[in-house]
Formats: sequence, C-alpha cells, structure tokens
Amino acid sequence: MIIVMNPDATQDQIDNVIGMIREMGLKEHAIQGTELTVVAVIGEDRKKDPSIFETLPGVSKAMKVLAPYKMSARELHKQTSTVTIGEDCVIGGNALQVIAGPCSVESEEQIVNTARMVKEAGATALRGGAFKPRTNPFSFQGHGEDGLKMLAAAREATGLPIVTEVVAPADVELVSSYADCLQVGTRNAQNYALLSEVGKQPKPVLYKRGMSMTLDEYLQAADYILAAGNENVILCERGIRTFEKFGRNTYSIAAIAELKHRSHLPVVGDPSHATGHAHLVTPAARATIAVGADGMIIEVHHDPAHAWSDGAQSLTPKQMADMMPSLAQIADAVGRSLAIPQHA
Amino acid sequence: MIIVMNPDATQDQIDNVIGMIREMGLKEHAIQGTELTVVAVIGEDRKKDPSIFETLPGVSKAMKVLAPYKMSARELHKQTSTVTIGEDCVIGGNALQVIAGPCSVESEEQIVNTARMVKEAGATALRGGAFKPRTNPFSFQGHGEDGLKMLAAAREATGLPIVTEVVAPADVELVSSYADCLQVGTRNAQNYALLSEVGKQPKPVLYKRGMSMTLDEYLQAADYILAAGNENVILCERGIRTFEKFGRNTYSIAAIAELKHRSHLPVVGDPSHATGHAHLVTPAARATIAVGADGMIIEVHHDPAHAWSDGAQSLTPKQMADMMPSLAQIADAVGRSLAIPQHA
Amino acid sequence: MIIVMNPDATQDQIDNVIGMIREMGLKEHAIQGTELTVVAVIGEDRKKDPSIFETLPGVSKAMKVLAPYKMSARELHKQTSTVTIGEDCVIGGNALQVIAGPCSVESEEQIVNTARMVKEAGATALRGGAFKPRTNPFSFQGHGEDGLKMLAAAREATGLPIVTEVVAPADVELVSSYADCLQVGTRNAQNYALLSEVGKQPKPVLYKRGMSMTLDEYLQAADYILAAGNENVILCERGIRTFEKFGRNTYSIAAIAELKHRSHLPVVGDPSHATGHAHLVTPAARATIAVGADGMIIEVHHDPAHAWSDGAQSLTPKQMADMMPSLAQIADAVGRSLAIPQHA
Amino acid sequence: MIIVMNPDATQDQIDNVIGMIREMGLKEHAIQGTELTVVAVIGEDRKKDPSIFETLPGVSKAMKVLAPYKMSARELHKQTSTVTIGEDCVIGGNALQVIAGPCSVESEEQIVNTARMVKEAGATALRGGAFKPRTNPFSFQGHGEDGLKMLAAAREATGLPIVTEVVAPADVELVSSYADCLQVGTRNAQNYALLSEVGKQPKPVLYKRGMSMTLDEYLQAADYILAAGNENVILCERGIRTFEKFGRNTYSIAAIAELKHRSHLPVVGDPSHATGHAHLVTPAARATIAVGADGMIIEVHHDPAHAWSDGAQSLTPKQMADMMPSLAQIADAVGRSLAIPQHA
Repeated sequence: MIIVMNPDATQDQIDNVIGMIREMGLKEHAIQGTELTVVAVIGEDRKKDPSIFETLPGVSKAMKVLAPYKMSARELHKQTSTVTIGEDCVIGGNALQVIAGPCSVESEEQIVNTARMVKEAGATALRGGAFKPRTNPFSFQGHGEDGLKMLAAAREATGLPIVTEVVAPADVELVSSYADCLQVGTRNAQNYALLSEVGKQPKPVLYKRGMSMTLDEYLQAADYILAAGNENVILCERGIRTFEKFGRNTYSIAAIAELKHRSHLPVVGDPSHATGHAHLVTPAARATIAVGADGMIIEVHHDPAHAWSDGAQSLTPKQMADMMPSLAQIADAVGRSLAIPQHA
Repeated sequence: MIIVMNPDATQDQIDNVIGMIREMGLKEHAIQGTELTVVAVIGEDRKKDPSIFETLPGVSKAMKVLAPYKMSARELHKQTSTVTIGEDCVIGGNALQVIAGPCSVESEEQIVNTARMVKEAGATALRGGAFKPRTNPFSFQGHGEDGLKMLAAAREATGLPIVTEVVAPADVELVSSYADCLQVGTRNAQNYALLSEVGKQPKPVLYKRGMSMTLDEYLQAADYILAAGNENVILCERGIRTFEKFGRNTYSIAAIAELKHRSHLPVVGDPSHATGHAHLVTPAARATIAVGADGMIIEVHHDPAHAWSDGAQSLTPKQMADMMPSLAQIADAVGRSLAIPQHA
Repeated sequence: MIIVMNPDATQDQIDNVIGMIREMGLKEHAIQGTELTVVAVIGEDRKKDPSIFETLPGVSKAMKVLAPYKMSARELHKQTSTVTIGEDCVIGGNALQVIAGPCSVESEEQIVNTARMVKEAGATALRGGAFKPRTNPFSFQGHGEDGLKMLAAAREATGLPIVTEVVAPADVELVSSYADCLQVGTRNAQNYALLSEVGKQPKPVLYKRGMSMTLDEYLQAADYILAAGNENVILCERGIRTFEKFGRNTYSIAAIAELKHRSHLPVVGDPSHATGHAHLVTPAARATIAVGADGMIIEVHHDPAHAWSDGAQSLTPKQMADMMPSLAQIADAVGRSLAIPQHA
Repeated sequence: MIIVMNPDATQDQIDNVIGMIREMGLKEHAIQGTELTVVAVIGEDRKKDPSIFETLPGVSKAMKVLAPYKMSARELHKQTSTVTIGEDCVIGGNALQVIAGPCSVESEEQIVNTARMVKEAGATALRGGAFKPRTNPFSFQGHGEDGLKMLAAAREATGLPIVTEVVAPADVELVSSYADCLQVGTRNAQNYALLSEVGKQPKPVLYKRGMSMTLDEYLQAADYILAAGNENVILCERGIRTFEKFGRNTYSIAAIAELKHRSHLPVVGDPSHATGHAHLVTPAARATIAVGADGMIIEVHHDPAHAWSDGAQSLTPKQMADMMPSLAQIADAVGRSLAIPQHA
C-alpha cells in the first residue's frame, strides 16, 4: 500500500501514519518528494483497507499495490487451469466449447429435442434453467426439481453434460445431484453465502460476472468458491450495465482478454445475455472467440417467439448451425480449435 | 404494450403480430401512421415480455406502457405507508428518523457505548452488522449470533430498536428473532431467495437498492417481499455504480424523490455508503433530508481509524452530534421534523 | 508517481525503469517490499503519462500521486475564489445566487417578461440561450445575435446580469460583447479550442461539467480557461450519464461537495438538466443548497408546455417563487444566506 | 409518438393532450385500454420533444416511435455507403482497411519511417495527430501545420493517404488542404459547430463516437455532417465510459454490429483507445473484424516507451505485423477480406 500525504502535512501527521502501520504489524518506508511525502507499507497488507488511512489527518489518499485477489490470480499459478464438465467437455484447453440450450426448461420434449438439435449443430454441453431468477416475482420461476429431471433425460438422450443455475444455498445439494456444472448467475454474483455453498460441493461452477462488478471484485468473489475447496471455476463475461440502451447490456469483450491475463481460471463469454437481441448474437459470438475466450454459453430455442423467457435473444438451432463454421475458422485464426461433440 | 412495425412491414407481418397478441389472450388495436404502423396491446400485459415481439419479422420495437411493478406502486395505493421499527421508530410519517451505528458489531462494549452516543446525538434506531457481506473472502465476516446478542444488549441498555443485515435465507429466522428490522444489502438486492424469505417473517425490512438497479427493477424486486406477505418494507438509496472515481459510489439523490413519487413505501438514504468518505457524509446527509427522504441510515464509530470495516466513511459521535441541528432545520424547511429519541 | 513492479520482475527490469525516470530528468527511490518492488518518482511529474511505464517489461502498473490539475486546485490557493457576474452577483461568497430563466430566448417579450418574473421570485441573474447546441441538426438552434439583443433588453428592463451559452470559438467575441457571463455547456466541456478562447476574454465563465467527465478531468479542463488568463471560472455540476433511466441524467450531488473540497473555484448546481423533470427540480434544488453549492442555475418558463426547448424540466415562475423560501431556510441551516435581488 | 395517460386521467386531460397534438399540426388516435388510455400521434413528429407532453396534467409518459436520426438511417438508404480515403482506400466495401500510425506526429523522420513500417505490415492509410486535444492544458498539443507537412511528406514517401484530427472550426480549411480524411475525436463528438464545418468541406470525415453518446445521439450528430453537404462519413466505435477500471474505456463491440444494422454509413473500430493497453489491442482488433466492422484505426509507434502520447496503447510495427495474418483469416471467416496496400 502507498499512502500519499498532503503537501502541507506535518511531521506529526506522518509519524501518526507510521504508528498506525506499525500497529498493524507492518513496516513502513517514507519517501520525501519535492512536493509531498509518500509512505510505502512493507508487508502483506492485502486484507487492510487503504481508505482507513484516509481518516487520518494530513493524508491525501491511500492506494493498494497488491492485487486484492489471491487464489484466482495468475501471478501465483502461471498455468491456465482446465475445468471438465461431465466427462469430455474440457474448458481451458486448446479446444473451445460451446454450451447451448434454452433459457428455461419448459418440458421434457422441448429440452430433449433442443439438446439433440444443439448437439447436431456442434454444442458440447447443454444449458437450461430449472430455477430461474426473474426480475418480476409474478413471472415463471422455473420447474425446479422437475426441470432438473428433464435435463437429466436430455443428457441421457444425447450424452451432453448439463449446466444449470442454482439460486439459493438450500438448493445447492439438489442441483448438484443432477447437474454436471452449476451456474451462478449475475444477480447472485455477490451472494457470498451461495458462492461459499457451491464451493463446498464437487461439481464445476460456471460463475457469471455481476453486471456492475469490477474485475478486482469479480476475482475476489471467485476466491470465495476456491477458498471453500472447489477449484473448478469457470469465469463468464455476460455483459455489464452501462448508459447504453440499444442492447440488454454492454458486452465488455476486452474483459475476457484481461481476465485471461490476470487469472489462471478459464473464461467463457455469453453473447446472448450480453446483447439481448438475436441479430447481435452471431457477431458477438464471433468476437468472443476472436478475443480469446475458452468457449461460450448461448441461448438456443426451437421457437424463440414462444420461449417462456429470453426469446428475443435466442438463436434458432438453424441460426446456431449457420454460425458454427465461422466460429471454427476464427478459432483457427487465433490458434485454437472448436471442440467436436462426442457421439452418444 | 405498444409494438412499432418497420416502415416497410407487410400486412402479413402485421397480421402475424396481431395473431401473437390474440394467442396471449389479449386484444389489439392497430394504428396506421404516415410512416409506419403501431399496434397497441389492450389488456393486462404486465407479465409479457415485450422483446418477444421483436423476434417477429417486420417488428422494429416493442415498449411497455404499464409500470412493471404493482404492489409497491403508488398508483394503486395513494397514501404513503408507514413502517414502524420496534415500538416508536415510525418511518414514513412527518418525523424523520436517523438510524446510526457502526458498520460492524465489534464487541459488546463497543456497540453498547456507541448506542448510547448515537442516541445522545439524536439517533432513534441503532444499526450494526453481525453478518457482513465482504468483498474479500478473507476479511472479517462478522460475529454472527454473538453479534446479534451484543446488539440486543445495546437495545436493552438504550431502548433503541436494532437494524441489522441478513445475508442468507438460512439465517433469516435467527436474525429475525433478535432484530427489530432486517436489512437486505445492495449485493443481495437481486437475491430473490433471500427477498422471499424476509417476506415471510414479521419484522420490517430495510431493503437497499442494488448498485446498478433501475428503479423499475428495484420496485419489482420489492414486490418479492410484499408478495410473500410482508408489507413493512423501507426502501433505501445507497449510491449507484458509475464512472465516477472520487467516492465509493454516486449518490443518486433524485432517485429518492422519484421513488417517493412512484411508490407508497417509505424511502431513506444512506449517505455513508453513497459517498465513502467522512468529509462528504454531512453534506450528503443534509441533501438527503432536503430532497425529501423519510430518514437516513448512517455509519458512526467512536474511533473510525480502528473500525474493523468502513472506517473511512464513519462519522464520530461528535461529528454526528454537530450535524444534527442542521438536519433538523432542513427538515423544517421541507415541512418535516426530526424525530426525538425516546428516553429508555 | 509510483511504479509497481511485477512480483517476478528482474533487477534488469527495475534498472530499466530507473533509467527511464532519469531520462525524464526526474529522480527515483526504489523500495523492496516482501512481495514486490515499487519505485517512487521524485520530482514534478504532473505532465508525465504514468501509463508509459506500463509499456516496460516487468511493470505491473504506474499510479499518479500528484493531482493532475494545478491552477484550479485548492492546495495552492486555500481561499475560495469569488466571481462576480455583472455588478452585484457575487458567486462564492456567503450569499447564494439563483440564476434563472428559459432554456431558449424565444422573443423579446418572452425574455423581458420572464426576467421580471424570475427577479420577482428572487433570481439575481438571468439565463437564456441565443446559441443552442441541439442534439438534432434540424431542431431550433437559437436566434443568435438577435437573441443576445433580446437578452440585453431584458437586462435593461430589470437590472439582472445575463448568462448565456457560447458554442463556437468564432462567436466568443460577439457573445462576450453582450453577456455578463459566458456559459460553456456540457457537450463542449472538452472542446479545448472553445475553453481557450473564453479564457482570453474578460467576462466570467460558467463552465459546466461534461456528462462523463471525472473530477480530475474537469479540473484539468478548467485549467485551460485559467491558463489562458481568465480566473473568473464558475464550476457547475449538471448531472452525469449513468445507467439510470428515470431522469435525464444522474445528479451527482456529492460532486459539488468534493469540488468545493478540491478547488478554490465557486461551484453551482443545475437541478434542471440534472433531473429533466419539473417534479424533481424543487427537491433537487433544495439538495443543491443543502450539500453546499454556491448557488444554482435553473430553467424557468412562463408556459413550459409551449417552450421551444426543455419544457419538461422548466419550472413556472410561480413554482420557482413557491420554492424560494425553502431554499432560504436551507441556506440558513448550512450557515449561508440567499442573495436578495437588487432593485433596478 | 405515443402518449401514455395516468390510470386516473380525466377526459378533460385527454382532450388537453389531443388539443396540444392538433396545435402542432399533427393528428391523434386515442386508444382506451383496460387500465389506461394511450394517445398515438399521427404524422412526422421527429422534431417534437416527447417530454413536453409530460408537463401536461394526467400524462404518465411520452415515447418516440420514429428513429430521431434521418440521413444516416439505413431505413431510407438500404445500400451500405462506401467512403474513399485518398484514391484507393475504400471503406465499406468487401475489403477491410487498417488505418495505422502514431498518436502524435513527432518529427518528419518519425512519421515517414512509421508510414513505411505500417505499410509494410499491411496498413492502407496512415494516421497521425498534428492537432491534439489533450486533457491537460500543459501537455504537448501537436505540431500544428508543421505536423500536417510532415504527414504530407509521409504520404509522398509511401503513397498512403493520411487521416488526421481537426479540433477547431477555424482549422478545418487548413487541415482539409493537407489531409485525405479529417478525424473528429470523441471529445468533440457533440461540438456541433465543428461537425457542421467539416460537413462543408469535401474530404471524408472519420467521426468518432462520443464516450458517453447513445447510438441515437451519435447518428443524429452524424446527421449534422451529412446535412451540411458531406456524405463521406465513417463512423467509429472507440470505447465508452463505464464503471470499469482495467482499461482506458469499455470497448462496446456490439455497437459496431448495431450501427451497421441501423445506418448505411461504414463503421470502423478503434481497439487502441478502446482498451488503452498494448496487451489488449491485438485481441480487441481481432474482435473488431469478427463482429463485422469495415476496418479499424490503430496506434502504432516504433518505440512506444518514448511516444509523446498514448505510448501504453501503441503496438510496435512488429506487433502489428504479427497480428495481421490473424485479421486476414478472421476477415475470411466473416466473408470479407483484408485490403492489400498499393505499391507507391
């Protein structure tokens, strides 16, 4: 940490800052500049709040030097981690995975048929929501355990592993007993009780970035899962909230590259939620691969106009199939390949 | 809902839209303009997703006409609701309440003494965190039930009712058994499982706005609590996330006035979290009263430099006491008064 | 400036950074921490770009220590500056000024009558636009010099000094020959050619914050005016652009307090543009005074529904008159007073 | 326009709205819903401000139906426009153009050598700033006309057409006499006087999006240039301002796809300013092509650590050359090709 004094700070004020640093069990190093003094803190101060120094007289500001996240940091774990969903869907290796499916599981027929269609188009995992976090309390909230059973039937029929959201700590055990990968959604991105709970079970976690989380906050929150014992965390950029109005969110594509830079965890994109409109999904999906993601999660529905949720941003299976060859070619351009679905 | 067709939409496309409206059990009214056609939907379409129409050929956009929230809306409940914390702390009436106390409950001595000091300064309720949602998993997470007992001791000593945060559905019963008012924090503002759970217990809920929630989303989420049976909801603007860097958040003061305009629920401000720096708290607290809030929640610590969390934004009891006369005078300027603490 | 090395930076990389610092004519001080090395730069590095160091191998990040603005900083100019518009309207002293009038000057009759009404209500200066920066090129762009003449007639009739916007460097001389104070609007807040030009003429400048400018950027840009020789700069918070949708902008009220903290220049608020809706203007105006502004600029129109621009956010003269007593009382609560219009 | 009445609006209030519509020379169509009445406005109301209706009693809100921009809209101009810089650099056709060069023109030697190197790497136009809009008034502001002459020498030496920024209306004629394409930067994106002026001269204009402009505002502002008579406008997404801190801006890649959807004008990306860090530029450049841009403008400097401005985001010529083959392959994946530099 670096503590910047005011230009007119007195020696007593500087000494007071130094006293506080020592009280914390840390050491200091004061540097007299031409206009002002800065005091560097020596030692592991990751858990200390720099703003506490700003309460002291004569202090202008205090700034962190160490990255606040630790377990998710690439610094101490140079090799990119891989996370395997089900048996074959390895995220973080050379091959890129496309996780596809509807927003909501509506019926067994719907999900089994959709699973067949997305697999045919090239998906290597199936997504589908059984527990839905809906903005409006009177909207459809998902089929719950029945939905999980429908997903299991789709896995049975196609061999695709299943990724599904969990919205409450109390449901983690249940969802974990069916799913191959648990999703934590953007609205629960700082629901630390849920993060800790998914950290205690063995299935991988696809953990979406909160819609207004900085990367520092995101990686610290990922540390909640890792610290609870689960190292199989997949990060996901799904669009952030900004002043823009044309899409549902603003797709911060460079965050994918920066997360890869800072963290050893694999990173995927979600071009469906990031844009909110079907006509933008294919361009955004291509950009996702181009920027270096390890894969993506997309919404596909056989009849978007009748989807129970998120229809406007769902591709049809045909639109997905039409898009896939371009993704394969872009993967090749960046030295990667597109994973090939295993036959059931 | 209003559906706007493209200028070159065909009659078949318009008929298709009309078919979809009728399929939903609603009626339509098409209007031929000079450049394009719009189709108005007649009926209760609050739960229908307008973007679904944007998946249909020939549609330019679809826009909601009805406010998406219902139970929290002033439209159907003209009278401002009042919510009573403990026995005497009525929020939403003419008298404005100041809820004060430390971010974290650190020890019984600390919280009892602070309670005495904030009461002396004019607080009518005590805040203090026993369960803390911390950005970093390795930071202090609160004393849990022991912290609740310390809060109860402070209530015993001063008569001040206690407001404290709950961060997980599983803790709601426990926290409710001690607290006079449950707080749901900004990180859990879209944790619908938690909102439903606090909606099922009888204590009032101080429900903070999510840091990137629109007012439409916020009031819909408040409906989760109301729909679960708890009508004692207090809204709270605590700063939003924007590009600004000088404070911890951007205090959206006009949101307080707009929430009062749209909703019958009482609204308080949180100038501490909204600004993040002690030197901004008094000005922001004054603005909170001036803009028409029903009160505020502020952080006060007897020794901010040694606070276990949020020290930089904590007032000392003396700073609070110095501020209160100006709040009383501003309350008078807007036709309100400042509540007087009851003697224990 | 502080340069933070990577944990695994080599001595050669550190030496390279030191070489670059010396090449700039500055000195360095390297501090070996437990996890990494930081290098402090000693000397006036205000004009050096910290990110340049981030291009060097082994560097994690570089951070400014000195505030980047200089002439507008309070550090070197402890006393709050006052700026006088016309003869009597002193901004930055104990008395608070209310500048009021329509968005656009529509006709001589309109502006003269409005001037009389706002003066009657308590305004001490008249605002009105003759050159309008409109979002749409086909909207009314103002009466130009004719509008300036109408403003002069209103000054003649009431004694109120006039504040009016200038949108192009070529118009500065003309506008300056009529106006008592030149306004630079939010869309031109980083139009440095215009800032330099208004800095070369003698009339005060009411300089609005850009809608997505940080305070560091805003004060540096104010330095353009000051550096060109004009010290009579009034800062103005007029709302920033965020994800919020209920108002035209988000009124960042704490920015007013922070600007007063960092700069010696007087600061006013613009509750009309900051909110965009008449029903929010009075609450926001009250908050403006409560938070410590030196005054405000508001839009008042005798018939908002027929205003040529910004009708939705205009108060009527009666609404303004109704609001003023509460502003006076709030001013008193914060140790200020409301200025009294001089009789013509 | 659609005007939504309050649920309890009276017939008199509805009639009043209708009267206002007719007064504007437009027609109305009122629709009685189950909960409230909406009034549709029939006719060309593009220039009418919907919020004006919100000043009338009984009105809940008013919403635009027609897009506010006109000349830049694809609706009335289905074919994508092409804009030619110099003789051969056609933007908007199948071939994608890469405009490259340093932020600032520093010396003739620097710019001529850089021009050679970027041409060698595959650039088809040269960028370089002679007039620089700098955040700090004491930073280097560009060489002015001398810089333009250096650019002309680089064109002479390589045959590359030159793109350079103009920051003031008074400089337009001068800059236009040297440049092949005039750039209007983000800080001047709503400097309408400048937009009109570049609209009156014959050279193409590369017009960057303002850092907090919505697409509606951006296309209306582009209309300023088109309305002044210059149809050769190239749009450019260069990153927007959001809460994110890891980069200089947030690259809103989907805005490129949406601009192509809404407008016939060609659209390029600026991955350098959008990210601000060299390690993010190549990934972002790849995403730019993948998402469907017509080309890009990037910063390249032979020695970024000694660049006079923007060094941290500059690629070296070698980094650019290394990146180009992947751009070509991605262009192919989306059915485009990379333009080949002409030999001088």
